[in-house]
Amino acid sequence: MQLGMIGLGRMGANMTTRLLLDGHELVVHDREEQAVREAEGRGARGVPSLEDLAAQLDSPRAVWVMVPAGEATQDTVDRLAASLEAGDTVIDGGNSHYRDTMRRAEALGEKGLDYVDVGTSGGVWGLEAGYSLMIGGPESAVNRLRPIFESLAPSSEDGWGRVGPCGAGHFAKMIHNGIEYGMMQALAEGFAIMKNKTELGLDLHQVAEIWRHGSVVRSWLLDLTTAVLGEDQGLSHIAPYVPDSGEGRWAVAEAVDLDVSAPVLTHSLMARLRSRDEESYADRLLAAMRNQFGGHAMKAAEEPAP
Amino acid sequence: MQLGMIGLGRMGANMTTRLLLDGHELVVHDREEQAVREAEGRGARGVPSLEDLAAQLDSPRAVWVMVPAGEATQDTVDRLAASLEAGDTVIDGGNSHYRDTMRRAEALGEKGLDYVDVGTSGGVWGLEAGYSLMIGGPESAVNRLRPIFESLAPSSEDGWGRVGPCGAGHFAKMIHNGIEYGMMQALAEGFAIMKNKTELGLDLHQVAEIWRHGSVVRSWLLDLTTAVLGEDQGLSHIAPYVPDSGEGRWAVAEAVDLDVSAPVLTHSLMARLRSRDEESYADRLLAAMRNQFGGHAMKAAEEPAP
Repeated sequence: MQLGMIGLGRMGANMTTRLLLDGHELVVHDREEQAVREAEGRGARGVPSLEDLAAQLDSPRAVWVMVPAGEATQDTVDRLAASLEAGDTVIDGGNSHYRDTMRRAEALGEKGLDYVDVGTSGGVWGLEAGYSLMIGGPESAVNRLRPIFESLAPSSEDGWGRVGPCGAGHFAKMIHNGIEYGMMQALAEGFAIMKNKTELGLDLHQVAEIWRHGSVVRSWLLDLTTAVLGEDQGLSHIAPYVPDSGEGRWAVAEAVDLDVSAPVLTHSLMARLRSRDEESYADRLLAAMRNQFGGHAMKAAEEPAP
Repeated sequence: MQLGMIGLGRMGANMTTRLLLDGHELVVHDREEQAVREAEGRGARGVPSLEDLAAQLDSPRAVWVMVPAGEATQDTVDRLAASLEAGDTVIDGGNSHYRDTMRRAEALGEKGLDYVDVGTSGGVWGLEAGYSLMIGGPESAVNRLRPIFESLAPSSEDGWGRVGPCGAGHFAKMIHNGIEYGMMQALAEGFAIMKNKTELGLDLHQVAEIWRHGSVVRSWLLDLTTAVLGEDQGLSHIAPYVPDSGEGRWAVAEAVDLDVSAPVLTHSLMARLRSRDEESYADRLLAAMRNQFGGHAMKAAEEPAP
């Protein structure tokens, strides 16, 4: 079927390619002209503006938005709302907060536009393996888009589905990412303990490789970990600094909102925050307290905190 | 090859069956006569005592011990040490603490016996899918046992390997189980948050099924979770009470010993402890403190604590 795609970053470009390979007609736009040229090279029709995109699509239009969550998504959705007509559908495939999604769906609904949110997992591997798609929105709109979902998912039957009303897709994706943080942190801690047990001389790549077959912890994240450890298990060229893109912290906030105890999701997030806090004020203060009540030595800072 | 097997519980019986199916000769013993009869029915040769088992095996003997960690394993190893001869090999395939393993290996080494520890993962599914085997011990002994490992593992090349000296196998298995706790807890918390988000009416089985295909959290534990949720996602007939069999707590103790920060492994264990503490003294005390400083209401106990 015909689909508009806005945003040709890593995810949007790969999804465009996967859809083109499956015979869909893609009309694409990105702020970066080079990204549009590359998509054209793979068979998409590029347009210079978001408004041109609306003009080039047949009615009822379907436009997939794959831009960063927050301001970029809001801006794109606002401009789309102005250039689309009643009966058209806007799909947010990014990592928006589900409350923003619900709010946008309501605003677009007032203009007769359908809004569909698609939590999308699969990363850079999705192009080849397919994406896991958690979909929220009106059943009729989701049904219209079925050919798109069937092509993006690992197979037409598996890895996609409407999980509820608008917002449900992004909610499920938020929880997915919270779980992802926890699973990653569990693996990271386990390998760190083994790395520090120097007397046993464990080959971490070998252990990971053994676990990939028949063990309880076999998983895609373990597969990726094994690949990393196979290259350089010392990891000495990688700084111990872990960014986060927001969904993990939303999951923790949601647990608090719902009175659900979620220590592992929370501590996975806290571990990332600590990894980035080279100036830890809390640890300076703890050292100072120990010194105050017990006269315990403090390690002097190499340079004073800013 | 010929192997003695002591302990025909869930794991030992299934491993015996898998080895028999691959053409090995098994001489087996268990305290429960019925378990021995069943193994005989599948082609093993049963013997009434551990000492008979030693007498029935050709030299150099190899005896796999698959009994509960702790006293049962110690008792079995002691009796084996008395009935075996220099050049024989004892294999501990159970979940022993690696320090006990190192101690036993040293004791048996003094009598000229080889000791091999095999961390074994795969649970009840191992019979069909094969077991993940983390092996510690002398290279020569591990090489002699190669045909056994090749049959127990998912394939002759994958899922098994010598990871280091005596104790290394059980160390790797201990860390494996610590990671397992963390991954399980991450999944459990994520689904609990979704369960409590009643306004979205998420079908947890459907979400899990979607994630199994193409998502970052796809894993064998997610496969099992999906199966559970497919039967009854309310889980109302299952008490919120989670046992542990020891390895997770050893992993946490090891992290402390090695000065390695492992918040997720630790909190996964703590969550299990809390699940079993229906009388939580800490929570009673917290409620009392809030009452003391703020006059906050306390909920009366339905019956006084014992």
